[in-house]
Amino acid sequence: MDFHTLKFEDGKLSILDQTLLPGEERYIELDNIQDVYDAIKTLKLRGAPAIGVGAAYGAVIAALNAPKDSKEAFFEYFYNCCDFIASSRPTAVNLFWAIRRMKQKADSMKAMDIEHIIEGLEAEARLIEKEDEEINYKIGENMLGLLKDGDTVLTHCNAGALATSRYGTALSVFYLAKQKGINLKVYADETRPLGQGARLTAWELSRSGIDVTLICDNMAAMVMSQGKINAVIVGCDRIAANGDTANKIGTLGLSVLAKHYGIPLYIAAPTPSIDMECKSGKDIPIEERDALEVRTIKGIQVAPENIKVYNPAFDVTPADNITAIVTEKGIVYPPFEINLKKLS
Amino acid sequence: MDFHTLKFEDGKLSILDQTLLPGEERYIELDNIQDVYDAIKTLKLRGAPAIGVGAAYGAVIAALNAPKDSKEAFFEYFYNCCDFIASSRPTAVNLFWAIRRMKQKADSMKAMDIEHIIEGLEAEARLIEKEDEEINYKIGENMLGLLKDGDTVLTHCNAGALATSRYGTALSVFYLAKQKGINLKVYADETRPLGQGARLTAWELSRSGIDVTLICDNMAAMVMSQGKINAVIVGCDRIAANGDTANKIGTLGLSVLAKHYGIPLYIAAPTPSIDMECKSGKDIPIEERDALEVRTIKGIQVAPENIKVYNPAFDVTPADNITAIVTEKGIVYPPFEINLKKLS
Repeated sequence: MDFHTLKFEDGKLSILDQTLLPGEERYIELDNIQDVYDAIKTLKLRGAPAIGVGAAYGAVIAALNAPKDSKEAFFEYFYNCCDFIASSRPTAVNLFWAIRRMKQKADSMKAMDIEHIIEGLEAEARLIEKEDEEINYKIGENMLGLLKDGDTVLTHCNAGALATSRYGTALSVFYLAKQKGINLKVYADETRPLGQGARLTAWELSRSGIDVTLICDNMAAMVMSQGKINAVIVGCDRIAANGDTANKIGTLGLSVLAKHYGIPLYIAAPTPSIDMECKSGKDIPIEERDALEVRTIKGIQVAPENIKVYNPAFDVTPADNITAIVTEKGIVYPPFEINLKKLS
Repeated sequence: MDFHTLKFEDGKLSILDQTLLPGEERYIELDNIQDVYDAIKTLKLRGAPAIGVGAAYGAVIAALNAPKDSKEAFFEYFYNCCDFIASSRPTAVNLFWAIRRMKQKADSMKAMDIEHIIEGLEAEARLIEKEDEEINYKIGENMLGLLKDGDTVLTHCNAGALATSRYGTALSVFYLAKQKGINLKVYADETRPLGQGARLTAWELSRSGIDVTLICDNMAAMVMSQGKINAVIVGCDRIAANGDTANKIGTLGLSVLAKHYGIPLYIAAPTPSIDMECKSGKDIPIEERDALEVRTIKGIQVAPENIKVYNPAFDVTPADNITAIVTEKGIVYPPFEINLKKLS
């Protein structure tokens, strides 16, 4: 891969501005908390795992910018910034998880001097990034065991290298298959309203020489009915203890279609996305986004100016529609309520 | 309604250029066959019934422009033009039906002089238009009997006033309900790639004071799962003798979702859309359209420039997923194979 989703160097977080893809590959440097917050909020940096890693580096930036005259002032600033970053998106559990971990790391170093605390925080963030890369690789390996040479897979949104520090969760299997000489084909849903499938998944897979065909979201049923799809693989934003899975809007519909056509649906899930404190999908708050995302595309009006819009960013796929949850620790089959517990 | 979809006056066909909606309401005048062909091919005039009416007036324009020095030359030109117009879209049976009817009308007048033949053709086209309006009104009346005050209906694409000479097929029920003081709410799928739901359905319903909410195609499952939808009503391009129905891409997926959530799916179908010569959905040719429709929106790139695209314009909903086919002659329930025959 000759691009990076995020890279931390010299106290600055360089990210690929994903709102400009696929037309332009532009990197921006973040060196203050407001910019980190904005980058996550406006989806320049997106994808649950990448947000987690980005937030961890955001915490490092907070520490770098914090007042150094007293530990009290340092920690007050640091914790406030952490809470601010955590408020940038309401659904992604990785965000809260990474921020909590950075806070805990800071807590554990309270006796040290500030310089060493900052070093410790940077090391922790790099560890989170490294762990993410390893997680994705293992998810890809586990997922590969569920497919066979020549299979065609439908995916939705972008749970790819662009959504993580490397490989992606749902897309890692394609990078690994490519490395191992196994042929997999991909259909990518464009994923309205923000077009992550069209802009990001199609971009990163085709750039890496993987056979990918773009379809509109409403064409999924047709390609399934034609017998073209052997599996549906998607990422997730949050998995409840009973297996209910919040993911990009449209996943629920795909899950119903896959069930109808007898096609397995696999959720690619790093274990930090599993929220055992959340009993079921009913407990997952669903972010509703601005009507303008649906009414306009890149500033161009595609619907009447003041038309009423419903724009939920996620939906919840009930556990019943999920064939397996594929984590870095192994493949979890139903009943998820029991088997997810065995993971940890 | 203070707009017209098409209107024939002084030998010219005035149509609302639907590719410019919802931003601009511009009418264009067609007075030659090439322009009629182009208007249908490029979707300026679209919707199966409106295409039928437009094609009929196209045949009148052909007759007006035909050489008048000999009947032989007149008819040769007329028939060639009819075949040319019929080739503008491959799936819409109304197009072929209207052209066939205009040819038959011409045949029946062969003994008359050319001037009277032209008058007869214009009268026939006006009759087709009037019949269409009446058909739509009756479909609306029949559909209204299937709904109750306060219901919310999901619709896809645009089978509205803009797709017909008036009222629409799937949308006529909303205009009639409004007239009768019955409250119905509508969710309109935006209908990628060409956005007929966002551009046309949202436009014509909101302009007429009907409560309409726009969603992306991939949000249909979510609103259904929330119990918000009492019925799905869509139009059709062609219905086979067994009830299989070709309609805008995405209808198949909706039909599977509706079945899953126990929501009735009604097809609004003028009887000319029923093709008894077509045994099943397998015999309906599916138009594949240009990849640029998916890769770009109004000229703006939304996917990688050369990405492979699959872009079928229609899909086929199997009869099994259809609750009823609502025609101007009455409501047809399964088994469609038997009950559609009783209609004619």
